[in-house]
Amino acid sequence: MPTIAEIGELALIERLKPFCAEGMIGDDAALISVDPGYQLVVTTDVLVETVHFSDRTTPPFSVGWRSVAANLSDLAAMGATPSGITVGLGLPGETPWPWVEALYQGMSACLQAYGGAIIGGDLCRAAQRTVAITALGQVRTEHAIRRDTAVPGMSVVVTGPHGASRAGLALLLGELAAEIPIDLRSAWIRAHQQPVPRFDAIARLHQLIPPAENFPPIAGMDSSDGLANALLQISHSSKVGMEIERSRIPLPAYLSETIGPETAIDWALYGGEDFELVLCLPPDLADKFTQTGCAKAIGTVSDTETVSLAGHPSIPLAHQSFRHF
Amino acid sequence: MPTIAEIGELALIERLKPFCAEGMIGDDAALISVDPGYQLVVTTDVLVETVHFSDRTTPPFSVGWRSVAANLSDLAAMGATPSGITVGLGLPGETPWPWVEALYQGMSACLQAYGGAIIGGDLCRAAQRTVAITALGQVRTEHAIRRDTAVPGMSVVVTGPHGASRAGLALLLGELAAEIPIDLRSAWIRAHQQPVPRFDAIARLHQLIPPAENFPPIAGMDSSDGLANALLQISHSSKVGMEIERSRIPLPAYLSETIGPETAIDWALYGGEDFELVLCLPPDLADKFTQTGCAKAIGTVSDTETVSLAGHPSIPLAHQSFRHF
Repeated sequence: MPTIAEIGELALIERLKPFCAEGMIGDDAALISVDPGYQLVVTTDVLVETVHFSDRTTPPFSVGWRSVAANLSDLAAMGATPSGITVGLGLPGETPWPWVEALYQGMSACLQAYGGAIIGGDLCRAAQRTVAITALGQVRTEHAIRRDTAVPGMSVVVTGPHGASRAGLALLLGELAAEIPIDLRSAWIRAHQQPVPRFDAIARLHQLIPPAENFPPIAGMDSSDGLANALLQISHSSKVGMEIERSRIPLPAYLSETIGPETAIDWALYGGEDFELVLCLPPDLADKFTQTGCAKAIGTVSDTETVSLAGHPSIPLAHQSFRHF
Repeated sequence: MPTIAEIGELALIERLKPFCAEGMIGDDAALISVDPGYQLVVTTDVLVETVHFSDRTTPPFSVGWRSVAANLSDLAAMGATPSGITVGLGLPGETPWPWVEALYQGMSACLQAYGGAIIGGDLCRAAQRTVAITALGQVRTEHAIRRDTAVPGMSVVVTGPHGASRAGLALLLGELAAEIPIDLRSAWIRAHQQPVPRFDAIARLHQLIPPAENFPPIAGMDSSDGLANALLQISHSSKVGMEIERSRIPLPAYLSETIGPETAIDWALYGGEDFELVLCLPPDLADKFTQTGCAKAIGTVSDTETVSLAGHPSIPLAHQSFRHF
């Protein structure tokens, strides 16, 4: 199992080329086209070993998948489709080549599933394994989803259950008892290790809007930092409140039964990394959208300034998202 | 002098907002426009403390300036103009706030001088100070400068002297005697700490091409990894050779006299980080370009497969660029 220091930088770059879009690597920069009427969407994320991942909870394939999925999810949350990514990689010299190979296999698998390709990158020595990804996508200017366009009366919907990623992490860390059925274990661990950016939900939503009609205002973001954080961020940016019904927040099957209803709702609200979309829509569009099965309504936008959780003891909703410092 | 851990992540983000383009921070991703007929150009670089910079050689303002300048130089080398950058920052919690502030001041100063703005970013805890920048620019499709379009008969030009950055580093590391005149010291250290992306040279070159004429083929890249590396990369990509005249390689004033002609040419060829442009042009255009004072001709493209250095003992030119692993 050779280390990357043994392989050497030039040979390492040669080994990584097959993972990259043809013709893109070799110049100082990559060229990509943006269609007329579209805007470019750019997002960036830095993942650092011991902070965002570790060998204990995340094999390298999943580090690659998750780091791409997290960036693609930001594109989906803007209503955009992916064009490509750049990968800035910092690695200790003793990193085994198979770790790097599996990382790129995971990135490629996620890109193949949801679109885009590796169009550029940089490689350097670092004390910790560090993956800095910038994702580029494009969106029709009038289709862009922002955080600051929610207005009172809109319905608040989520594209899926919350809490599964946190449950998967708990399983990986040994925080949950081992007698949980294998199919639940697999589903939750998969939710943590290989999250899905919800381009499908956006595509379904667009299908519900007749092309002749003006595109309706849609506010939203993804729930990567937790459902509670997403609700609070949208409310704050749009200067509105929300009334969320606790009982309508979709939970993964059997999560409540397994860990108790209080912990389940806590993980759903604050667990983070579920990468679902949290959207505010005109009520008629929200009705059509939830009828497709792609989303569930969990409340409404109000003209107050607080996000309240009906049926929950901690009203208003608390800021409690992950802090790095 | 508060550390960023004492300030906390949310307050830190608030302090960084004034450095970012208005309205860009707050959504999952940033939106930028690309003009019709233009392509987007993307480049990325990761700088890591102890590998690319240290407090001994580079104050934080210069770390910021250099990290932006290195990326902008890649855009200039493609013939593009800058649109914006994203900044992925990894920092130990004990990093003093003034270090971060000066870093952003340096980045902003470079962007103000050459164009573009900070349009997005990410912040996380890391063992080493790490700056991952992705720069975005745009170029008219037919104006894009590639590495693979050099053909025999073209002139090889450089936009400035080489070796000053290496001399500046030597001064900062105490490798050079202290009796060097203060104005030379300042110039060389400045070349190392605050390099200049050569958008001016590209603009001047474009002025020499009548708008009615077909844009001539131009091959090139920047000399960030050393002049020798740039010559070899262009030759390799274009499947051509080059005959470079050693005596025509421009050196910083008094470098030869100070460190001797052999070391001076060695630093010019292999020192790196001069961020000049190395271009291959049709001879008539090269003549006009060098007459503006923006460039010097150093040789010609040949139909051999080697880059030879006339008048130098080490023929053909050796690969000897910086390796991370």
